[in-house]
Amino acid sequence: LKAAILIFPGVEELDFVGVYEVLAKGRAMAGEGKIKIREPLEVELIACTREVKCANGMTVLPHRLYRGLQDYDALIIPGGRGVQALRDDEGLLREIRKFAERPGALIASVCTGALVLAWAGVLEGRRATTHHDHREQLAAYCDVVPERVVVDGNVITGGGISSSLDLGLRILEIRLGEEVAGKVRARIEYDLER
Amino acid sequence: LKAAILIFPGVEELDFVGVYEVLAKGRAMAGEGKIKIREPLEVELIACTREVKCANGMTVLPHRLYRGLQDYDALIIPGGRGVQALRDDEGLLREIRKFAERPGALIASVCTGALVLAWAGVLEGRRATTHHDHREQLAAYCDVVPERVVVDGNVITGGGISSSLDLGLRILEIRLGEEVAGKVRARIEYDLER
Repeated sequence: LKAAILIFPGVEELDFVGVYEVLAKGRAMAGEGKIKIREPLEVELIACTREVKCANGMTVLPHRLYRGLQDYDALIIPGGRGVQALRDDEGLLREIRKFAERPGALIASVCTGALVLAWAGVLEGRRATTHHDHREQLAAYCDVVPERVVVDGNVITGGGISSSLDLGLRILEIRLGEEVAGKVRARIEYDLER
Repeated sequence: LKAAILIFPGVEELDFVGVYEVLAKGRAMAGEGKIKIREPLEVELIACTREVKCANGMTVLPHRLYRGLQDYDALIIPGGRGVQALRDDEGLLREIRKFAERPGALIASVCTGALVLAWAGVLEGRRATTHHDHREQLAAYCDVVPERVVVDGNVITGGGISSSLDLGLRILEIRLGEEVAGKVRARIEYDLER
């Protein structure tokens, strides 16, 4: 599992750090021998710029500049007010659609990242979710389901901001099994009843 | 409420981004007129270096270089394997202790950030919590309580990694009231039953 999380100016901080934390913690725990994984696990933040100023003012340096998606088998698109600017990036939207059609590829979104998948044509005829303030907008493109994480074939969408953690855990569950996901969930203490 | 989150090499990503997201979202919602706050709300990431490489490989640029804590009235110390190096930073530990003794100051930790508070002498005679793997280590310094967030006077400690969100919400509740905290919780969709 080689995952890219695409970040961009105006990306919501927790939208990408939640799923990043979960996947990177899985990798770290495999390295420590605390979990056994059936395939290598890698996660990178990729962006079109060398610095990314996020929605609430945090600045992050991506691991790699975006040069296409050929090196990855999972792509995660977080949300935030910055998604609006991606709507006009036809080259990127075309690449996202091509990626989604690749056999074995997994494509996911958090929050309003689902709109980017919609604009790319990935959500046609599918069930998906997004932040509660944007469900109506997304409903123009697909069947919106008000759940925290929605899996439809190889397309996984998460709800608002903090659902990023749940999305990451669901990806681990699908690709590496329930036991691995459960151990990562316990390690980050996301297993408490509320 | 002017909060500083101290970040350092090896800081755990979600440990600081969780509380950052919550406080920054409160500020943004106040700016949008969606919540009314009784005092201004600001949050900054501060560090001793211009770039901070986090525990799982994410690189963040702090808002400000650390030059003492005189400009803040809340200080939050996240955890991660990088805390070990702070143990020998006597100048910093002294500043943290001085900060905690200032009237009206609020001091908080997430995860193993509690160890930094302990080394600074802030937890003497107090109740506190930390990541489940480090409770025994922390018990040499204070009364360890296995709860998600522990409030003891002006010292607030959170449990492991994802409790960063709960810590942020508790700080909002204490300083700005339950209604504000509840609205931020709903906006980030952290209000779902699990």
